[in-house]
Amino acid sequence: MSTIKAYIEENKDRFLEELFGLIRIPSISSEEAHKEDMVKAANYWKEMMLQAGAGKAEVMKTDGNPVVYGEKIIDEKLPTVLIYGHYDVMPVDPLDLWTSPPFEPEIRDGHIFARGADDDKGQAFMHAKAFEYLVKTDQLPVNVKFMIEGEEEIGSPSLGKWAAEHKDMLAADIILVSDTGMIDEDTPSITTGLRGLTYVEVEVTGPNKDLHSGLFGGAVANPINILTKMIASLHDKKNRITIPGFYKDVEKVHKKERKLLNKAPFSKKKYKEALDIKRLHGEKGYTTIERTGIRPSLDVNGIWGGYTGEGAKTVIPSKAYAKISMRLVPHQDHVKIGKLFKKHFKKIAPKSVDVKVKVLHGGQGYVCPIDIPAYKAAEKAYEETYGKKPIPVRSGGSIPIISTFEEVLGIKSVLMGFGLESDAIHSPNENYPLKQFFNGIETITYFYKYFGELSNKEE
Amino acid sequence: MSTIKAYIEENKDRFLEELFGLIRIPSISSEEAHKEDMVKAANYWKEMMLQAGAGKAEVMKTDGNPVVYGEKIIDEKLPTVLIYGHYDVMPVDPLDLWTSPPFEPEIRDGHIFARGADDDKGQAFMHAKAFEYLVKTDQLPVNVKFMIEGEEEIGSPSLGKWAAEHKDMLAADIILVSDTGMIDEDTPSITTGLRGLTYVEVEVTGPNKDLHSGLFGGAVANPINILTKMIASLHDKKNRITIPGFYKDVEKVHKKERKLLNKAPFSKKKYKEALDIKRLHGEKGYTTIERTGIRPSLDVNGIWGGYTGEGAKTVIPSKAYAKISMRLVPHQDHVKIGKLFKKHFKKIAPKSVDVKVKVLHGGQGYVCPIDIPAYKAAEKAYEETYGKKPIPVRSGGSIPIISTFEEVLGIKSVLMGFGLESDAIHSPNENYPLKQFFNGIETITYFYKYFGELSNKEE
Repeated sequence: MSTIKAYIEENKDRFLEELFGLIRIPSISSEEAHKEDMVKAANYWKEMMLQAGAGKAEVMKTDGNPVVYGEKIIDEKLPTVLIYGHYDVMPVDPLDLWTSPPFEPEIRDGHIFARGADDDKGQAFMHAKAFEYLVKTDQLPVNVKFMIEGEEEIGSPSLGKWAAEHKDMLAADIILVSDTGMIDEDTPSITTGLRGLTYVEVEVTGPNKDLHSGLFGGAVANPINILTKMIASLHDKKNRITIPGFYKDVEKVHKKERKLLNKAPFSKKKYKEALDIKRLHGEKGYTTIERTGIRPSLDVNGIWGGYTGEGAKTVIPSKAYAKISMRLVPHQDHVKIGKLFKKHFKKIAPKSVDVKVKVLHGGQGYVCPIDIPAYKAAEKAYEETYGKKPIPVRSGGSIPIISTFEEVLGIKSVLMGFGLESDAIHSPNENYPLKQFFNGIETITYFYKYFGELSNKEE
Repeated sequence: MSTIKAYIEENKDRFLEELFGLIRIPSISSEEAHKEDMVKAANYWKEMMLQAGAGKAEVMKTDGNPVVYGEKIIDEKLPTVLIYGHYDVMPVDPLDLWTSPPFEPEIRDGHIFARGADDDKGQAFMHAKAFEYLVKTDQLPVNVKFMIEGEEEIGSPSLGKWAAEHKDMLAADIILVSDTGMIDEDTPSITTGLRGLTYVEVEVTGPNKDLHSGLFGGAVANPINILTKMIASLHDKKNRITIPGFYKDVEKVHKKERKLLNKAPFSKKKYKEALDIKRLHGEKGYTTIERTGIRPSLDVNGIWGGYTGEGAKTVIPSKAYAKISMRLVPHQDHVKIGKLFKKHFKKIAPKSVDVKVKVLHGGQGYVCPIDIPAYKAAEKAYEETYGKKPIPVRSGGSIPIISTFEEVLGIKSVLMGFGLESDAIHSPNENYPLKQFFNGIETITYFYKYFGELSNKEE
């Protein structure tokens, strides 16, 4: 088994060239203009699966972008691992902040710079290569299935239905996902909790047309001013969210567990330095780790209205807009939160404006037990690569589909992520360190070894 | 003198073709890309002045866009009227709301539709044609000077200095301006008060880069959320502006005058219907007429930050921006208000963000006495055209340069405006009714007759 290191060393140039081919396809799922790129990226993955040793692979239709499914069944009696990943990526704006073009991958200082370098082209790709090694050296101890989708960055709207329709085909003992991060390059960790998400877009309409702010200013409700008042009122002085019922189902985390959580290495000073901020900001009574791990949050992700060009234009716009997302913790239901938000936001609107609220997407939170064989196998795998046991952590991020898998397929997921905070996913200059990329392939290979052993033991 | 009606009837097609030539030049002063169009529009005006009968006309350099100056001196002992207008226009976005292209003038239902049709190409043009008639029929009773600038829509940053440098050349008894409106097409009015303006742009910076709202949401100050809180706090529950000292210099208007002001025809119902709003919104204790006429206001004219494209992007942006303008009333100093805003806005910023405030431009308010010969001449002129004495009104709009003229040149202005509320200036589908256009030319012609008589009487 130790030859995985040698295999990576021998093949790394080819690995990178293959990954770069995938990255060069600008598969931005939220932009209509990239529809064809989604199909291109899916086909690219299909070829990769076959080349790596899958017995079969196909691009399958869904209500949205296609899913790539592949499998290698070595013995139906053996356990099965289902790999989940996504080939779609986030938009790239603001484009002018990128040092190199987002879809022309470039290696600088030992990092791959490109949109998708980490999230999730780079990370999902590691699975293809670990699989390739195990197949080629005839060491695969379990069955493997791949399910790579193209709508993760827009909330996986089609995958739940598709998965339900292909439940038998997808049957597995565990889902393995690399779409999260580690504490730092020397501190392995496994994400055991994910926050849920409700994402809405709001539209506030004042007058039926843009008005001259001199002639009408002071006499007519300005939808931007009103929108700022409404958004401002969504947090109270303690930075708690003011939507009635919002906290009702929030998981009560025991003092003991909160203490444990806060043992994860965290430097307030370094955190502030990295973001160049003078002061942290969040819900009173909770630490930063708790604020992102076990507490829900509400952020405006975008706001626009009126004149935003160069210079001055004295206008009262007809409309103002905002995109607002809420991160949810276990037991909070994203559909219910969407309804609570909508009801509250319409209620706080003054009669001088009209308000529309559209829920764009959402997903439930997720918790992974740390005593199942797959978690233990992952733990051992990281330990073998890094020489340290990984720390279980609750992440603030959301992968809504993970809880859907549990609901629809009845399968738990283990989140073996290798991203670093500095990877700038969703931002300009997204990057992925080569070290994490190669360590990831190695660690995933070890996972199979231990998972094979531990699941056989259990039987 | 009654032949002006006949002259308009004979020449109206030519008048429109000449005006359309000017409108077709997209002279948007706030956009760098239109620099050459500014010069084109200035030259067009120069030719118009000469063709109309000016003794001389030239395009003169300023620190910004050129000023077109022209004159017809018939006798140095006679009074002099200085016409002020502007050839620059507002931006046209959102372009998709225009029924016909903004710079391709089109007549529909008796209205000229185009950017600048009213403000101020159409209105200033009327002066050229009234002047043409008086010169051609040898009836001009006074000297006439023209000063047409190209930076009014960005706050006339260069004209004050230029005017000071050409004080002798610009010497006049009165400045005549058509850049305001009337109550409605059958109710003539003359604007006797204008609000001042302070226009600022604010920038709020949170983290030094865009962040993933899942991983950081709840732990880091989101500059959009902060900006909405800050803007929301600028008005209290009575819709009064909360900036300390903001109201200190506001003109106290006597109860009697407030009563008079409220005698102007105003239908709350029609006003709401025209804007399609359910409820008015403004400072408690004041009527709509007072809110725009004698009270200051604060409006967000534009706001932007984060992801504003299609679909959902879960980002906490690094920066958020807003353009904010304050309309000021007599005695409020726009420079002082700019300083008060800046100081207050920085003071209310939490330590978790950085705030920058840039004052983009400003101007003082203005009041015109109703007992000077030029005002009386204007009054009689409207009465001759409309059969009714015009009502003196305080407008909510600002023409900052008007108070600068008073300061720099020591000359009062009379605002003979013919715009209507439905002209949608600064908005998509700006238009100007042909009826107002022709009535305007007629009324301005009468102004000269009465101004000649009244100023001679005074001597």
